[in-house]
Amino acid sequence: MVEALIWLGTLVFAATGALKGVEKGFDLLGVLVLATVTAVGGGSIRDVLVGTLPPSALRNEPLLWSVALIGLLVFRFHPRVQALERPIYYLDTLGLGLFAALGAERGLEAGLGPFGVALAGTLSGVGGGVLRDVLSGEVPGILYRAGDLYASAAFLGALVVYALHPHQEEAALFLGALATVLLRVFGRRLGLRLPTPK
Amino acid sequence: MVEALIWLGTLVFAATGALKGVEKGFDLLGVLVLATVTAVGGGSIRDVLVGTLPPSALRNEPLLWSVALIGLLVFRFHPRVQALERPIYYLDTLGLGLFAALGAERGLEAGLGPFGVALAGTLSGVGGGVLRDVLSGEVPGILYRAGDLYASAAFLGALVVYALHPHQEEAALFLGALATVLLRVFGRRLGLRLPTPK
Amino acid sequence: MVEALIWLGTLVFAATGALKGVEKGFDLLGVLVLATVTAVGGGSIRDVLVGTLPPSALRNEPLLWSVALIGLLVFRFHPRVQALERPIYYLDTLGLGLFAALGAERGLEAGLGPFGVALAGTLSGVGGGVLRDVLSGEVPGILYRAGDLYASAAFLGALVVYALHPHQEEAALFLGALATVLLRVFGRRLGLRLPTPK
Repeated sequence: MVEALIWLGTLVFAATGALKGVEKGFDLLGVLVLATVTAVGGGSIRDVLVGTLPPSALRNEPLLWSVALIGLLVFRFHPRVQALERPIYYLDTLGLGLFAALGAERGLEAGLGPFGVALAGTLSGVGGGVLRDVLSGEVPGILYRAGDLYASAAFLGALVVYALHPHQEEAALFLGALATVLLRVFGRRLGLRLPTPK
Repeated sequence: MVEALIWLGTLVFAATGALKGVEKGFDLLGVLVLATVTAVGGGSIRDVLVGTLPPSALRNEPLLWSVALIGLLVFRFHPRVQALERPIYYLDTLGLGLFAALGAERGLEAGLGPFGVALAGTLSGVGGGVLRDVLSGEVPGILYRAGDLYASAAFLGALVVYALHPHQEEAALFLGALATVLLRVFGRRLGLRLPTPK
Repeated sequence: MVEALIWLGTLVFAATGALKGVEKGFDLLGVLVLATVTAVGGGSIRDVLVGTLPPSALRNEPLLWSVALIGLLVFRFHPRVQALERPIYYLDTLGLGLFAALGAERGLEAGLGPFGVALAGTLSGVGGGVLRDVLSGEVPGILYRAGDLYASAAFLGALVVYALHPHQEEAALFLGALATVLLRVFGRRLGLRLPTPK
């Protein structure tokens, strides 16, 4: 079940990376690179930081080939994929929540404290998107999109995992991911915004 | 004593990162990300390269929370912090010297030779600032600010540590940091400039 | 023999990095940083990912000093180096082929499958150039230069190494590098282009 959700999240991340490559007018290789980087970049940064080398994504052949396949499909049928904006928004949020919660678990296993665990979770969730943005020549969206609680939601979800994990591992994973999803989705509905400097 | 100076250097780096985020008009999360990346990015790159995983900063909870607190304070009171340009310049130089010297020590412990040690020291000193600049969508200042001997000063300081460490460890650390500080500060006063291509 | 070719490839990569720094108007330090990053960045990213820490380039003092020397020479004599466009193109292609094949070998040693090996090889070949472009404030050329089969050629060469390595190690290395070189050079001559989104 968790495994299936990870696949879903990874492939949606791949699709958002590929869409960015199409939007930028990159060639097929550029689109595949952005798909791959967005899908497996965050988890790989986290694996490097906690010392799991090679990163688990590099050792997951079926996942890598599926990411490339998604990249190809988006490259070929991008107008239809772009029309799926709403489901992509929700699936991307689900992926964010999952990766943040799983990254927090890896941080706990590496013996990190609350802030370290929150950073490991947040990097797992947003690191791929940050790499995608930097490679595309853009400032990472998480730094200035005050109306989209994205990295903040991942940070909160990872903290939830940290707090609940000693009591109940599976519930911690589930509730951490849920906290991320709820904060992002309801944050937008309620018009929550991060403050900006005065 | 060294420990206290490391804290001071890290927190000043956090402040310069947060100021960059404010200047760019990033939101609160963006400001905190730049504070964190600038403060612990250089040492973390170095720790990854020498194989100290997780990086020591990720395991230092009091430091991480303090970095976030500095980010919050700068976000809230940035006009007052910006007015402290001169003390920030000197404290930032002190941080640079310390991190370069400490990074050089980590390189020596990893068995590197002089150039490797100098790179480890330089990356410790300037890596966080380079990440801050790239995430902000800017070309890293160390690449073109010919009139500010910043990375060059870190490189020199790390070489001093390499040369003196076999004789006297503590003096090496102190004199390496001092070399960096003196080269940067007097380089500016004397109008020293790195050459640019003709 | 292979060792001599690695040196040649590394130094040509250093020259292309230094040329980019000159073109950008960076100062001497910036030129040396780009030379170093371009020359040893790809192999270092790969070493981090497969867990060879410190990366082999950081432990190769003669190579590091030679890279810096090349950076100095390009800084001083850049008009003459720029005039060598054609030989640099071929030597750069040779370096790409070699690094991709050697990176694929490191990936095989780390127990990766075909896609992981291809990624390890490609990152070895193009990672330094990607870092060079990002630090220069540019979108990496491999993402959009549809008429230059660069990263694609590295990917193919690494796959060739993966396929042939179990049968004959040395031939695999040689034929993998050759596949990269041929695809890039004849791709250009035949006007092959990667597709771009419609």
